[in-house]
Amino acid sequence: MKILAYRQQAKEALRYWLRQRIARRYPAQHLPPAQWHLAWEEKQGTEQAPRLMLQGHALHALAERYGTPLHVVNAAQLQANLAGFQQAPLCRVYYSYKTNPIPGLLAYLHQHGAGAEVISEYELWLARQLGVPPERIIFNGPAKSDRALRWAIEHSIQAIHANHLEELQRIAALAQTLGKRARVGLRVTHGGWQGQFGLSLAQGEAAAALAWALKHPHLEVVSLHCHRGFLIRTLEDLDGHLAPLLAFCAESHAQHGWLPTLLDIGGSLAIPSVEEHDAATTRRLWTFYIPPSAPNPALTLSPAAYSQAAQSKVAAFYQSRGWPLPEIALEPGRALTGNAQMLLTRVLELRHAQPAIHAVLDAGISIARSAREQFHQLFPLQAHSRPTQLYRLVGPICHPGDTLYPAWNLPQLALGETLAIMDSGAYFTSDASSFAFPQPGVLAVLPDGEICWWRQTETYQDMVAADSLPLPPETLSW
Amino acid sequence: MKILAYRQQAKEALRYWLRQRIARRYPAQHLPPAQWHLAWEEKQGTEQAPRLMLQGHALHALAERYGTPLHVVNAAQLQANLAGFQQAPLCRVYYSYKTNPIPGLLAYLHQHGAGAEVISEYELWLARQLGVPPERIIFNGPAKSDRALRWAIEHSIQAIHANHLEELQRIAALAQTLGKRARVGLRVTHGGWQGQFGLSLAQGEAAAALAWALKHPHLEVVSLHCHRGFLIRTLEDLDGHLAPLLAFCAESHAQHGWLPTLLDIGGSLAIPSVEEHDAATTRRLWTFYIPPSAPNPALTLSPAAYSQAAQSKVAAFYQSRGWPLPEIALEPGRALTGNAQMLLTRVLELRHAQPAIHAVLDAGISIARSAREQFHQLFPLQAHSRPTQLYRLVGPICHPGDTLYPAWNLPQLALGETLAIMDSGAYFTSDASSFAFPQPGVLAVLPDGEICWWRQTETYQDMVAADSLPLPPETLSW
Repeated sequence: MKILAYRQQAKEALRYWLRQRIARRYPAQHLPPAQWHLAWEEKQGTEQAPRLMLQGHALHALAERYGTPLHVVNAAQLQANLAGFQQAPLCRVYYSYKTNPIPGLLAYLHQHGAGAEVISEYELWLARQLGVPPERIIFNGPAKSDRALRWAIEHSIQAIHANHLEELQRIAALAQTLGKRARVGLRVTHGGWQGQFGLSLAQGEAAAALAWALKHPHLEVVSLHCHRGFLIRTLEDLDGHLAPLLAFCAESHAQHGWLPTLLDIGGSLAIPSVEEHDAATTRRLWTFYIPPSAPNPALTLSPAAYSQAAQSKVAAFYQSRGWPLPEIALEPGRALTGNAQMLLTRVLELRHAQPAIHAVLDAGISIARSAREQFHQLFPLQAHSRPTQLYRLVGPICHPGDTLYPAWNLPQLALGETLAIMDSGAYFTSDASSFAFPQPGVLAVLPDGEICWWRQTETYQDMVAADSLPLPPETLSW
Repeated sequence: MKILAYRQQAKEALRYWLRQRIARRYPAQHLPPAQWHLAWEEKQGTEQAPRLMLQGHALHALAERYGTPLHVVNAAQLQANLAGFQQAPLCRVYYSYKTNPIPGLLAYLHQHGAGAEVISEYELWLARQLGVPPERIIFNGPAKSDRALRWAIEHSIQAIHANHLEELQRIAALAQTLGKRARVGLRVTHGGWQGQFGLSLAQGEAAAALAWALKHPHLEVVSLHCHRGFLIRTLEDLDGHLAPLLAFCAESHAQHGWLPTLLDIGGSLAIPSVEEHDAATTRRLWTFYIPPSAPNPALTLSPAAYSQAAQSKVAAFYQSRGWPLPEIALEPGRALTGNAQMLLTRVLELRHAQPAIHAVLDAGISIARSAREQFHQLFPLQAHSRPTQLYRLVGPICHPGDTLYPAWNLPQLALGETLAIMDSGAYFTSDASSFAFPQPGVLAVLPDGEICWWRQTETYQDMVAADSLPLPPETLSW
């Protein structure tokens, strides 16, 4: 036992020494609250530490009043992101529902002119519930039910995108049964996602499927769709994505006189303030407790720059050939909603350890897995002037995988203190499970400062609502 | 474009050749249905292919009648697993709620004598709803709310396990306020999970915390708890886990005259038919489409062998010192429920490709992530005598990560055909999210053949039940 303890201590001492050296070489760069239009409260001359403010609301007060964990949506940011995508008149936005399928948020986007990109029967049902007109719905995804396809064909939605010839054949057969012409598009790939996703341009699958579809009396081929898969950050990324699509348009025009009236360039635009941890960062984080640095937001195209660049590129290509301009469909997900939402959380437990104090949060991987794998700025909701301390921030689940921030420097934390995990507007709610804890609600702060619940916090009763309880539920005091 | 295509073709040809060679060296071993007390239907002389049967029910018929995806629980298997753990009279079972928190399943286990191991306020609430007596509840986890702790102290539950000194101090303070003595235990670690989980034996943290707790007038230290973390399969694994605990008992007895009356050895026993894919298997699977082989179930201790071995080991140690025997608390999770449940799924789409046809299932990583990372036997629910074909089985989500079986040989599949993913009784339901598709229901087949819903299949309305819909929901025809 004692030898083990000495060995452990020697190992820790070595790691500590290495850590000091590495930490000096990699000082963590953080982003300021202004990146999200947040600001610290003006000093009131009181003893209270300044609080982080959003549209006149102290986020700490929202956490106290509505409980944690809690998603807070900044609707003004949502509107600004959407307006950016809409700046190029040729471009129309179809929001990727799966990214953040909160009906209140979707309805807000629809009110401001966004359409719906859906990938399942459920999402199509939701778009209908929200009153999205069929011509503003695009239906993607590898698993379209017959029932959903029938509705889509009968109501002539904007486009049904087929991933492969077998799917195209199924759509054609359904359209024939209904005595309709289905508005379809080809989903193609050029080196990104493959497998079940799309027809290869390089291997001629796309050309063969187009030739087949153009001849079918029950298909109207309106669209060409491609989703890059890998994130787009720069003009070069965007150009590399568009070039093979435009080349295919030229080929198809030469061969069949066919051009898409809808050129759907998919999603994939990155969130400027979020970045996947690379292998070196991951190793430094987990082995040596070196906090990660923020990406430089200026290196990622803004929604406005992205849509304008896409429009210029496509318009130049089409106009130089004298072709009529297409509608450019954008399917932004993370870039539209990612940075318009944050997750408020609270410190439940503190355990002193070396080199980092372990702080147990009420948010863990079951509701915030992305924060483990990507850089997400973290703010304390009150600016205490206490000395800084290294923390490992973990979730509430009884499993060591439930670690969100392996290392992060913060002013000394007290039990009950609140924090904000930024950029929770992409894949946090859609990926969430009710693992031993209820899921957070979603509270919207509207541009005029009004607050409304978009999704209620899950209750214990909700968690067993679909269950056959063998005993009559008692009314419990908590 | 053409050069790219040739390069791609050359690469594929090379991979195909390598694949053939590797595949011969690693023929996939499967497990027979009898491993799960399933059997193929007796030939009726009809044309129909024999179906896979459970307690007189054709699983295919259940899938047709109740829809897919669908979890089916084999309650006889559940009962047999539990009885195994109960064979050693010193051992008592506290089921790890987080592993599969379906109230119907939990109630069934409680009816057959299992207690509850809970890790959150919600799980404690659920145990109360199910009428579990306080003395059959153990409260673990790194995030215990004050409210839950107060209830646990007031009702003298079997044990509250503290992970570290700070938590012990919080429990003591709450007990003092309530004028009670809290029944606590120390969670200790010996090289498995660390961080927020437990007091290190090697570094003396456990000894220091024990000395502190024994002196506190509001704490009654009844228990010693240790969860191995790494899976236990063999007697050696179990011995290696128990030895440091027993050594700590001897030390504590020598120093303080203290012995735990409850020795809680945690969970970690493996499912015999499930195994994490190792790095080599993963590489063969993903790069070369080589299907994985099943583990040999005989290499994993059965519940009966495990509990009897634990009892022998502990009893021998205690008896040789003339100490009174403790209760041995077992907290099985996966080993109790893992192989008593299966997930029925259906083929929604087929795409021909080389070297494997892509079959899109209605079950993907959002409800069956474990099947991506571990060996889970897969059965077609009808034994067609068609030629065998290599498949890549993917989920319905529009993302390439949604692949469950990168390679698996099956008799040629048709659209709509049904399959069973075995051993879905651990972490499938607790980890599940409603990503673009509703979550499956849980149907129990009782030992007498009776069928009952334990959890209803999620509906679209359920998925937006907590939402503020800006429009009144229409009544839709689907």
